[in-house]
This record gives sequence, C-alpha cells and structure tokens, in this order.
Amino acid sequence: MYRNDGFRELDRQECLRLLAKVPVGRIVHTRQALPAVLPLNFSLDGDGAVLLRTSAASELVRAIDGSVVAFEADEVDAAAHSGWSVVVTGSAAVVTDPAERERLTRTGPRSWVPSPEEVFVRIEPELVTGRVVGGRSLQGLDPSR
Amino acid sequence: MYRNDGFRELDRQECLRLLAKVPVGRIVHTRQALPAVLPLNFSLDGDGAVLLRTSAASELVRAIDGSVVAFEADEVDAAAHSGWSVVVTGSAAVVTDPAERERLTRTGPRSWVPSPEEVFVRIEPELVTGRVVGGRSLQGLDPSR
Repeated sequence: MYRNDGFRELDRQECLRLLAKVPVGRIVHTRQALPAVLPLNFSLDGDGAVLLRTSAASELVRAIDGSVVAFEADEVDAAAHSGWSVVVTGSAAVVTDPAERERLTRTGPRSWVPSPEEVFVRIEPELVTGRVVGGRSLQGLDPSR
Repeated sequence: MYRNDGFRELDRQECLRLLAKVPVGRIVHTRQALPAVLPLNFSLDGDGAVLLRTSAASELVRAIDGSVVAFEADEVDAAAHSGWSVVVTGSAAVVTDPAERERLTRTGPRSWVPSPEEVFVRIEPELVTGRVVGGRSLQGLDPSR
C-alpha cells in the first residue's frame, strides 16, 4: 500500500471480512496496453478467491483469462470522508473442471444479465491488501484488530 | 467497451454528466508491474479532465506522474441489478504551473486528509467511455440521449 498518505492498512482477515459484505467490485486489467476497469458482481470462495460469472463470449473473459488482474471493492461515505478499499491481486482463469463448475453453479455468483453460455472466472487471492480511506475511522472497522 | 455482454455504451457527454454527479472515483494504474487501484475524491475540470489533490510526498504521485492511467466512477444499485460506470483514460501529470495551481486551489478538489504539502494531479480526458451495467435501465439515464 502507499505510504505517506495517512491511511491505515488492513490485514488479510479484515480485508476478506469486508469484501464478503459487498455484492459488487471492480475488475482491473490491461486491455490493448491500456488500464481497464469494470464493475461486476462477485462472490468469495472459501479460500478468499474472487468468483465472477459472465458470458463465455464476452471480450472480458478473453482479456483476463490467464492474466494477473486486480479486483477492488470499497465502501466510501463521501459525507463522512471515510471508508475502506480492498484489493485482491492474482491470476484470473476460467474454471474448466466440470466438478468445480457444477459446484459453482450451485454456490457461486449469479449473473445480473444471464446469457445462454456462461463461465466462471476465479481470481486467486495471491495478494490481499486493504486500507481505510479518509481521515476518520469507520463504524464497524475496529482499529484494534 | 466490451461486446457480447448486453450492456449499452454511453456517449462522452453522457459520461461526463454522470461523472460530475459523484464525489469519489478510483484511480487505476500499474505499480511494480501489477495492476493497482485506489478510491479518491475528485472533481472535473471544464474540459472533462479529472482533478485529484493529494500529498506531494505520496507514493501514488510518484507512481502516476507521467503515466497513462484510468479513472473510474460508478453508481450501482445491487438490489436493482443496474447502474453505470464511466472511465476516463489519459496521461496523469502533477500540475506545476503556478497560475494553474492557484486556480485549482480555489476551484479544484479538497483533500479528505489535508497534508502540509499538497499537489494537484490532472488526468487528461483522452478517452472517455462508459456503460450501463446490469440488465435494467437506470432512473435518470435516458436511453434516447
């Protein structure tokens, strides 16, 4: 995380607890050599991996399958100037194992825009970082943890 | 924007109008060869450039000054499965011109965590893209525009 900006860093456990509270995050990757970012709903797997579900034909899937991506979620209260942001960084891969696909069909995220052929994408939680943003502490975030 | 995912694209004017409604977005860049993303409050300049204000000593400034970055903002209603996302992509640079700094001190964004020495960062609106996310249309977004 960045230093010299007065923000408190969160540990991995705190990050995953916050991430589990929100339904939507943003996938960050590189597209045609430019930074790209897109909100998506998601769920967390037991090990902290981020699970996405999208159309098999989408350009997003082609852009991220096999790449290192970041997945960010946050909750910011602009009036209180406070909030948190968590980022999971790791390799993204389309889930191809049939048993795993079957499990995720039952337990994974649902598509907001269902399409005939969908795939699950798993982002490995290789790096899980987070921070409190803004100057004041946020309700529900206990600084002593 | 991505095709084959059923989402409607927004034109530049629509994007800038939506961007002006929200106080916080996320800066996306590359850090130590990894994708990095961080929420920040911002304001829009008259030409659609994104203006940030941060500590001169922050690692963020060193990471983005002179680089092409993306700045994303969104509003997503998870219950309604709908919302929008806008991305401004362009070169980021610390504002060094004294007259320009003076103007931005009056009209630019305010820091949430003021620090003794602050700088303004300007992201040129070289590419302004946006989309409706989710399957339903969003109140306030008139598809005929």
